[in-house]
Amino acid sequence: MRTPDPDPDEGDASSLPVDPLRGAPGGGAANPAWLSDVELTEARRRLPMLYVEAVPVRTDGLGAVTQVGILLRATPVGEMTRTIVSGRVRYGETIRDALFRHVENDLGPMAFPLLPASPTPFTVAEYFPIPGVSAFHDDRQHAVSLAFVVPVTGTCEPRQDALEVTWLDPAEAASDALAAEMEGGRGTLIRLALASVGALR
Amino acid sequence: MRTPDPDPDEGDASSLPVDPLRGAPGGGAANPAWLSDVELTEARRRLPMLYVEAVPVRTDGLGAVTQVGILLRATPVGEMTRTIVSGRVRYGETIRDALFRHVENDLGPMAFPLLPASPTPFTVAEYFPIPGVSAFHDDRQHAVSLAFVVPVTGTCEPRQDALEVTWLDPAEAASDALAAEMEGGRGTLIRLALASVGALR
Amino acid sequence: MRTPDPDPDEGDASSLPVDPLRGAPGGGAANPAWLSDVELTEARRRLPMLYVEAVPVRTDGLGAVTQVGILLRATPVGEMTRTIVSGRVRYGETIRDALFRHVENDLGPMAFPLLPASPTPFTVAEYFPIPGVSAFHDDRQHAVSLAFVVPVTGTCEPRQDALEVTWLDPAEAASDALAAEMEGGRGTLIRLALASVGALR
Amino acid sequence: MRTPDPDPDEGDASSLPVDPLRGAPGGGAANPAWLSDVELTEARRRLPMLYVEAVPVRTDGLGAVTQVGILLRATPVGEMTRTIVSGRVRYGETIRDALFRHVENDLGPMAFPLLPASPTPFTVAEYFPIPGVSAFHDDRQHAVSLAFVVPVTGTCEPRQDALEVTWLDPAEAASDALAAEMEGGRGTLIRLALASVGALR
Repeated sequence: MRTPDPDPDEGDASSLPVDPLRGAPGGGAANPAWLSDVELTEARRRLPMLYVEAVPVRTDGLGAVTQVGILLRATPVGEMTRTIVSGRVRYGETIRDALFRHVENDLGPMAFPLLPASPTPFTVAEYFPIPGVSAFHDDRQHAVSLAFVVPVTGTCEPRQDALEVTWLDPAEAASDALAAEMEGGRGTLIRLALASVGALR
Repeated sequence: MRTPDPDPDEGDASSLPVDPLRGAPGGGAANPAWLSDVELTEARRRLPMLYVEAVPVRTDGLGAVTQVGILLRATPVGEMTRTIVSGRVRYGETIRDALFRHVENDLGPMAFPLLPASPTPFTVAEYFPIPGVSAFHDDRQHAVSLAFVVPVTGTCEPRQDALEVTWLDPAEAASDALAAEMEGGRGTLIRLALASVGALR
Repeated sequence: MRTPDPDPDEGDASSLPVDPLRGAPGGGAANPAWLSDVELTEARRRLPMLYVEAVPVRTDGLGAVTQVGILLRATPVGEMTRTIVSGRVRYGETIRDALFRHVENDLGPMAFPLLPASPTPFTVAEYFPIPGVSAFHDDRQHAVSLAFVVPVTGTCEPRQDALEVTWLDPAEAASDALAAEMEGGRGTLIRLALASVGALR
Repeated sequence: MRTPDPDPDEGDASSLPVDPLRGAPGGGAANPAWLSDVELTEARRRLPMLYVEAVPVRTDGLGAVTQVGILLRATPVGEMTRTIVSGRVRYGETIRDALFRHVENDLGPMAFPLLPASPTPFTVAEYFPIPGVSAFHDDRQHAVSLAFVVPVTGTCEPRQDALEVTWLDPAEAASDALAAEMEGGRGTLIRLALASVGALR
């Protein structure tokens, strides 16, 4: 069974913004980073984690979706899996900033994404550690993800652990074959994304 | 009292697509253009007319709306009024094509609009000939308008009877002062547009 | 090939509201019903017709969709076909009134529908007379339909030409088997409806 | 300056569901409740907290919003403030369950709310501890709230610290006067709610 790992920020406590009331990271007893990696991991077992996800698309001149970008990713145990842009919202970060940051992380700086004017996601995907509670599943945590369709106009060069971006037409992207390869139920998320742009048949 | 005139196509029967089953326009007895200007005008008194409307916006690098474009237009009787992009959907024309056509008509060919990926409008505005039935009013007809927020990235050079485009920040665009200048209740439409992109306070 | 007939109002000119400026129907030269059945039929070849459609659903106590209602209908040539609630918006009628009228027409007076608070449809379905322009097709006309999900809380007793309502769970309603039985591409509409309520897998 | 306190669950660690992998609460070394009140408070300074909010409304027979319910609440320091239904999403809890729980907590068991079929909020409100980052502000935390319009059909009897529910018509609910009395920028949230149901002028 695959182990989803949608969050490249895991254990990234040191990159959290500094709490102005508590001093700089590494400041000893008053260290704001007291929520260490271990503690963050434990917090993930006690609180729903807020995520953003993006389904990258290409559009034609009239805005209609013509292709969907799917990421190929290697899991920590070396298994290949297909996914979309996904990552955690940090403390103090806006949804829009988080969305841009993760799109850039996963698609590279030349993707030139067009973030939507509306802050309302096309769906809210609820990932539970126990399969079957919803369409979505994440072994590690209870994550609630605000999911957006994001047209990209440039060249995608995946960074981090994403190996490549594959562009599929809407029918392929909605297929059972693709859904079977996608982690955590994200095949459903692709279909909901296509439905939201009127590209699901 | 102002006379709204949101449809530059009025009486534009000759530009309707030719019905392949009936021959070319002007073809005499079998003329598909039998629905003459007079007849089209009468049809408008018998059927709701389908419109599209676009609220042009400028966005920042993260997609947030920073400005709203308002058109200044001269009515047939020489009165100045403020409005947005608006026009009829033709027989056989897709919503997306109609939206693009009217944006180009009203903002010029260099506006470079980014039509939304989603075909769902932010609201459906119902214009009735009798004021008070809804927030929207059109002396001439019962029109039902699918309204979209459309980011534009180029230069707007209004064509047709629109004289200029004024760019306002969201607070100005939502003001009572602007609403009082807009025809047919479109001040409300601006507010609904701003709300849909999270830019209404 | 099946002939879709989603509009029980066809030729129903006599039931149009009376134009107060023109006198009563049958009033001779000033007769507002001058747009006769023939003329209305011709108008349908020249203008997009505005429709509303409703996907009836049953929900659980928390509002989640548990079942989808599909209508069985006999076409004029005696063929059985599956469809949803569908009908034309009349001149002077609000979308909400039209939606209620057609739900009551098709599901009976004891259906007790809960019309949505939001006037924005989950999708706009564009039916073209030529197949392939969009996912939706209607031999008779260019129709643009505002589609809503409508929970019903009572008992459905189809009237008019609808023979019965069949309740399906979301997976059945989204199946290829059902889509193949539905007229005009409405299998796609069911899937978009399910996606809009998070019930599509 | 008022101190918003939208979350009656604060420090409610003992009511969190038991982690089946770790044993029962109070189980010593394997105690899942190791994230004590103090630790939860600290987590709130390190992670965005997920909330749901509901704007209660009354609708007419056709689903149109006729009234908006505003809660009067006493803050811990005895100040009166106006707010809406609001509360945290617990670990392992669905959005829908959280929404129902908080509506019942704040409006009482006889409110008979009609939760929306769609899981997509009308907006995502981002509350930051520093005013001015967004339209919304919460001294205590970075909270991200999924906001819904919820028609209620029964009798509201506020529980907990809410003193009463006042029903206002849409124009009053959207007024500057009300906005000035509402905590954390929720006057804006009311306007966005009204816009989403087409009831903002």
